[in-house]
Amino acid sequence: MSRNKGKLYVISGPSGTGKGTICAEILKEIGNEFSVSMTTRSPRPGEVHGKEYYFVTKEEFEANIAAGGFLEYATVFDNYYGTPKEMVINRLERGYNVILDIDVQGGLNVKKAMPEAVLIFILPPSLEVLRSRLEGRGTESREDVEKRLGQAVNEIKLIGEYDYYIVNDVLEESVQTIKSIMLAEASRVPEAVKPIIKEYESQQ
Amino acid sequence: MSRNKGKLYVISGPSGTGKGTICAEILKEIGNEFSVSMTTRSPRPGEVHGKEYYFVTKEEFEANIAAGGFLEYATVFDNYYGTPKEMVINRLERGYNVILDIDVQGGLNVKKAMPEAVLIFILPPSLEVLRSRLEGRGTESREDVEKRLGQAVNEIKLIGEYDYYIVNDVLEESVQTIKSIMLAEASRVPEAVKPIIKEYESQQ
Repeated sequence: MSRNKGKLYVISGPSGTGKGTICAEILKEIGNEFSVSMTTRSPRPGEVHGKEYYFVTKEEFEANIAAGGFLEYATVFDNYYGTPKEMVINRLERGYNVILDIDVQGGLNVKKAMPEAVLIFILPPSLEVLRSRLEGRGTESREDVEKRLGQAVNEIKLIGEYDYYIVNDVLEESVQTIKSIMLAEASRVPEAVKPIIKEYESQQ
Repeated sequence: MSRNKGKLYVISGPSGTGKGTICAEILKEIGNEFSVSMTTRSPRPGEVHGKEYYFVTKEEFEANIAAGGFLEYATVFDNYYGTPKEMVINRLERGYNVILDIDVQGGLNVKKAMPEAVLIFILPPSLEVLRSRLEGRGTESREDVEKRLGQAVNEIKLIGEYDYYIVNDVLEESVQTIKSIMLAEASRVPEAVKPIIKEYESQQ
């Protein structure tokens, strides 16, 4: 049975929906299937090149952009962050799944570059819950919170481009749903079913 | 969040693949989401009208065929067996999933009548395993076994029309995969996403 190629999963959602916690939990449970991003920001103490990020210069990053080397990239506080295409494709070819934890716009860019990617959207139970999660961080002004809520609604408007959605109320349930999605996707009848049919025919 | 309507699942596969055992296990675990078929055969001792089957006369069954009342039906040993459309639709409308345990050709007929149905194909690990399962029944002649194997390959040729496939090697894993498929399908972003977006917009 040829189930050799891995699948690419994108997990996105507005800031504060708990996407990061979900991804960390999945990483713990199913092992390292996350790709390593490339960035131009400086490594923090303890961060290792090739583990948390590939740390590169602005010139190297921009050369990679010019060469079409990113599935998606974005600028945050004057630093670039991007997902190197080749690394993802290599992992998929070797039969591993790859999970990308990126923002909604980045997710759409990945879908454009690799239409076979599976996009999962993480929603908050309500805007009220999202508001109290953001306020609970204690790091953001009331104005910032309002801005993030407005941005959240704008991102939610793009949900139609996603394949699956999860309302992140109970962490364990959200993680279970993502694991189920991965198992279901691995059981999809592939576009090219001939290898499956041939395998049984040859046994006759 | 409007996740009100149930989904229709069809579980099919060649004779001897263990489809019946899988369905019985799911029935035990997730409750009665199976629809009751209609048949013209006589009830066996202990069988209850409306539980194992709806037992009807040939005339009633044929009137129902003429009225387009079946999602699919088939003739086995001079008796009709069919899935009443209205009953399935009623259950779905009330938000329940419905699982149909029917043969491959019946599954394709259901898909024609209700394209939103989710079709799951159960495969044997190999024809060799299927052969020994069929022989193990001890009820079929060598000729019958060969006939069934040939029929199995013919049915497998139709797998491209199905959405998911499961190689039924370990029962518990097959059951887990079907449960995962059901959870994943319930998490699909619906074609009409506007209700989701509106719900969050209205909370602003």
